[in-house]
Amino acid sequence: MADSNAPAEADLIGLDWGTSSCRAYLLGAEGVILAQARAPFGLMAVNAGHAADPAAFDHAFEELCGRWLDAWPDLPVIACGMAGSRQGWVEAPYRVLPADLADPALACARVRSRRGTEVYVIPGLTDPHGLRGVMRGEETQLLGANLGAGEHEIVLPGTHSKWARLQGTVVTAFTTFMTGELYALLTRHSILATLIRPAPEPQWAAFDRGVDVAAEAITGTGLLGALFSARTLPLTGAMDETDVADYLSGLVIGTELASARKAWVLGPADQLWSAADPELSARYARAAIRLGWRTVHAVENAAPRGLWWTARAIGLIGAPPAQTFPGVVS
Amino acid sequence: MADSNAPAEADLIGLDWGTSSCRAYLLGAEGVILAQARAPFGLMAVNAGHAADPAAFDHAFEELCGRWLDAWPDLPVIACGMAGSRQGWVEAPYRVLPADLADPALACARVRSRRGTEVYVIPGLTDPHGLRGVMRGEETQLLGANLGAGEHEIVLPGTHSKWARLQGTVVTAFTTFMTGELYALLTRHSILATLIRPAPEPQWAAFDRGVDVAAEAITGTGLLGALFSARTLPLTGAMDETDVADYLSGLVIGTELASARKAWVLGPADQLWSAADPELSARYARAAIRLGWRTVHAVENAAPRGLWWTARAIGLIGAPPAQTFPGVVS
Repeated sequence: MADSNAPAEADLIGLDWGTSSCRAYLLGAEGVILAQARAPFGLMAVNAGHAADPAAFDHAFEELCGRWLDAWPDLPVIACGMAGSRQGWVEAPYRVLPADLADPALACARVRSRRGTEVYVIPGLTDPHGLRGVMRGEETQLLGANLGAGEHEIVLPGTHSKWARLQGTVVTAFTTFMTGELYALLTRHSILATLIRPAPEPQWAAFDRGVDVAAEAITGTGLLGALFSARTLPLTGAMDETDVADYLSGLVIGTELASARKAWVLGPADQLWSAADPELSARYARAAIRLGWRTVHAVENAAPRGLWWTARAIGLIGAPPAQTFPGVVS
Repeated sequence: MADSNAPAEADLIGLDWGTSSCRAYLLGAEGVILAQARAPFGLMAVNAGHAADPAAFDHAFEELCGRWLDAWPDLPVIACGMAGSRQGWVEAPYRVLPADLADPALACARVRSRRGTEVYVIPGLTDPHGLRGVMRGEETQLLGANLGAGEHEIVLPGTHSKWARLQGTVVTAFTTFMTGELYALLTRHSILATLIRPAPEPQWAAFDRGVDVAAEAITGTGLLGALFSARTLPLTGAMDETDVADYLSGLVIGTELASARKAWVLGPADQLWSAADPELSARYARAAIRLGWRTVHAVENAAPRGLWWTARAIGLIGAPPAQTFPGVVS
């Protein structure tokens, strides 16, 4: 990473605007991260769950990126995620599958910030069939994962895990598992929470036990019929209370992986691509190997790379050599 | 129901002490309900989720049953449910499967109330194998359902739905689905709650749609992969927001029934026995018929009948003719 006082080759500001937080990246040549910032300015905080308030988005944008724009007022800015939702900064209507993530004609929504910066907002994707899947932000990670030519499948673990199938840079299908949110609901608000005691570190044996129970439940009474064991096992002395949280983590992640493997993954499922933060990636990789995948490839920094490549695909930044900015010796 | 001023043949007070509320019944000959009362004195309220506080149970007991005991100080009292839990009024250790619910030697826990009344507390059941199922209170409903000789299966829908298998009055197996609690979590605390608008009456077409999606998901990505549709369908205009709550109800109840039918129910599953309040029973019956059961038998008042029959089985009340009490012309 460059000296934060003199990031000499800044190309782009990228924003990954989620539901609970917003991450900002100062990106250089080939998408290298020169600096980054994160703040709890997710959609829910900015709007308090209500109608869109452009001033609140503007304020969050200034807090995160103001100092970068003070230095380089003409730096292009691109955002993905909830900034483009109906309750966002500016609505970027969903693109319909199949959708080429690197399409030069991809139409971003645009909004001008108070200081006059034009912010490009990448549209999410929707599947018009069946249960009408939607995603916002993950499409940018899918491009950033850079899976290459041919057909690939990838999981983006998280609050609402996405499984996506791509043909090159074209998304052909995806589905959503509410895994992370269900885990949060169960450990915070359910009766199961009363028998959870925090552990100083991940309890991997308990996690594995949850994965195994999930895999067996898939052919039996399912997750709905297995969850209560996170109460009955500690209640009857068959599990330490410090194991319950990781047991539940294994149950829900194991259920997601075993369900996807059975119903969604094409072919022999030898390899799994996964993009998430390192801690969550480690859980998915561990469970996936336990459930029969042979190799799990962890993809890092998919969001900033996807922001940079989208910007380049639509011509917002030029191909190398990198654009130069005021104060930069080129 | 007898005149509440002169319930001339009171045999027993029965208490069904749940997690969120407590129901008290004044029972007459053959378990007929002479009067009843309900208060939000469930285990969680009485103990505020913490250690057992006998004084709080005593207070709740007096509020619900004091006037009955003022009139008939010697009326026997029997309770089932959370009053016997470790955080309850007096711990009644679980009985282990297989367990005969009508065993004359069934050992109740006993606690003496402040006014001197001895309260018998029926123990719950546990399955020592596998995921260590537990129940408290439902065992009493199972006896009250009076399924008769031979092998039967029954569902007790609720916060934590139980499916039980009985041979006569002997419980041989059971399992738990967290259906009601999951529905409450999703509609109150999840992101799905933001797109729910109340409907003036049940939206049965939306409920049926949820049941159908659940049945299809059983062979696909499962409930975890179907839940997010309760967001994407209204978000994309494919469902009215007033339909979302009943769609979710159909999703979770349909998942429970389809999972149980596939994995748990013995034989051809032509008939389903179900014991719950009328509104919930109607939902289960509707979904069960949709999923292939031919007949659904709704059992009413299983708890008070079970309390009465348990009291008779252990000799707490005599066989008819009924015991008489002060002020009663026999």
